[in-house]
Amino acid sequence: MIDFSATCPIPISQYPHVLLAHGGGGKLMHNLIQKMFSPAFGNTNSHDSATFHLGNAQLAFTTDSYVVQPLFFPGGSIAELAVYGTVNDLAMSGARPLFLSVGFILEEGLPMETLWQVVQTMQQAAEKAGVQIVTGDTKVVDRGKGDGIFINTAGVGLIEHSLNIHPTSVRTGDVLVVSGDIGRHGIAIMATREGLAFETTIESDSAPVAEPVLNLIQAGIEVHCLRDLTRGGLASTLIEIAEASQTQIHLDENAVPVREDVQGACEILGLDPLYVANEGRFAAFIQESDAEKALAVLHAHPVCENAALIGRVIENTPGRVTLKSKIGATRIIDMLSGEQLPRIC
Amino acid sequence: MIDFSATCPIPISQYPHVLLAHGGGGKLMHNLIQKMFSPAFGNTNSHDSATFHLGNAQLAFTTDSYVVQPLFFPGGSIAELAVYGTVNDLAMSGARPLFLSVGFILEEGLPMETLWQVVQTMQQAAEKAGVQIVTGDTKVVDRGKGDGIFINTAGVGLIEHSLNIHPTSVRTGDVLVVSGDIGRHGIAIMATREGLAFETTIESDSAPVAEPVLNLIQAGIEVHCLRDLTRGGLASTLIEIAEASQTQIHLDENAVPVREDVQGACEILGLDPLYVANEGRFAAFIQESDAEKALAVLHAHPVCENAALIGRVIENTPGRVTLKSKIGATRIIDMLSGEQLPRIC
Repeated sequence: MIDFSATCPIPISQYPHVLLAHGGGGKLMHNLIQKMFSPAFGNTNSHDSATFHLGNAQLAFTTDSYVVQPLFFPGGSIAELAVYGTVNDLAMSGARPLFLSVGFILEEGLPMETLWQVVQTMQQAAEKAGVQIVTGDTKVVDRGKGDGIFINTAGVGLIEHSLNIHPTSVRTGDVLVVSGDIGRHGIAIMATREGLAFETTIESDSAPVAEPVLNLIQAGIEVHCLRDLTRGGLASTLIEIAEASQTQIHLDENAVPVREDVQGACEILGLDPLYVANEGRFAAFIQESDAEKALAVLHAHPVCENAALIGRVIENTPGRVTLKSKIGATRIIDMLSGEQLPRIC
Repeated sequence: MIDFSATCPIPISQYPHVLLAHGGGGKLMHNLIQKMFSPAFGNTNSHDSATFHLGNAQLAFTTDSYVVQPLFFPGGSIAELAVYGTVNDLAMSGARPLFLSVGFILEEGLPMETLWQVVQTMQQAAEKAGVQIVTGDTKVVDRGKGDGIFINTAGVGLIEHSLNIHPTSVRTGDVLVVSGDIGRHGIAIMATREGLAFETTIESDSAPVAEPVLNLIQAGIEVHCLRDLTRGGLASTLIEIAEASQTQIHLDENAVPVREDVQGACEILGLDPLYVANEGRFAAFIQESDAEKALAVLHAHPVCENAALIGRVIENTPGRVTLKSKIGATRIIDMLSGEQLPRIC
């Protein structure tokens, strides 16, 4: 129960209005969840998959809205994000994604052909990800009160393992594996939006990752925690996990896979790839003795061919993420207050 | 499988762009679902609850987005609609609603206090409806690209009966019961939006109806079909059911409960209450021999104290809805192409 006489838990003097950064995957969004949503709704994981038993089945349930601009970009579109994003959220609890709902909020004046293209692409993406879109809703808002098309999807998946895949299962000695090279999605969006041309077209990494995750579990890997790297990038994800698990995560920058063209684009744009958004990448915390086997399983899947061991969980300072940089110095990785780029997904 | 070489199934020459009416619950929305969404996603019920088995549990799954303006109105707000609307969709398959997801799409600049009020009210509504909000997501869009706050909820419920509650179960001889007086929600929104003052303040009928529905089932009533009366009102709902069941539904206008103040407002505004939106009302098709018992069960619940038997399923013309008017004439009830009022929910 919450105290309905309570005043707004977000300090009004500091934040009287919602800012773009409140949706950015960084500190402000984190605060909004921790201080407003979680206490009000009586749960502590309001931005993860929820899991529950119904009959003899253990289910995972999650939702995401998609407001990306532009709607279409190199390597994907809002349609793939809306399917893969929710599929990947389910996969992060080790669930087999099965059913999706879709809610469209359309702006009056949206070209009908655009809607048709989005609908077709969503269905193709659903087939690729092995899920069925089983129920939906459409709302239309007046011109100037939306932005072409927003999509919400919710997903239901089946948990068929007995692991406790959760930040609180992370422990000292665990190794950290990232499932592929990072930063492509954010750079693809930014390049399209700002009309930047690099030597090569950098395509989003948008992809479903449920299959490689289920492969890990089926191979008997003791998976302690999984998290997809979306808004806020690898850095924000790891800080959240370090805080929730009360461990220190130590990264080796040399080991973090970043494609050369992405690294180059980041340097030109003054970005740190650790904070750039991804849409087909995840971090896995696993028992050290399983590291080699896990990498072999991941490398066998086309989406994870660049998977790498990039860090370890150490004792030292609970809640901290540190990085041994390319030149050998160690620094603390902090959460951004907002995001580098709004509306990335 | 759909034919991805297919051209857009909505005739571009007629509808090159999405219109407000495509979200209005009438003919255009119906077309969009029938011609675009259902064939693409390979289901025929993309705007109803989907049902499926997982393990030994039979589940219902549904979604709705809420874009109502204004956010707060007499008798409710977007927060109650977002909870009750999805709860009621689940109830229409006879499911016990259990878990909700919530996706917020916030416009930059939304007062933080407004968000807090919505969050608190959603939690109160969830407690009233007996469901838990277990997972969520927040996106923020730039100022001028949204409209304060849009909410999507998806819901999971448990089906504990063996009835086949579906339009195709409706048969000749069934009676039609409406769960209460109609038209209050639409009139409440319209009066607020247009600044109209009637003698009394007409409050929305917004309410959760899962409890009375489950009471019907527990009482052993042979329920053939249930449908909540939202966009498009009673008339649009009945036309959809008449088409899906290939029966004729014959209404007695004198029996349809409409409060005097709502009837008066409709006359002033030139509206037919049959087409006005509701947010806490449903239609039930039941076996004739159960009629009296069903009305007694409904009348025992505060949300359904005005429930009434308003029509019958007859043979004559499949797919047609007819009405015996107050003056005794019989006329055909047709579907509106859009809705009387956009963004009612």
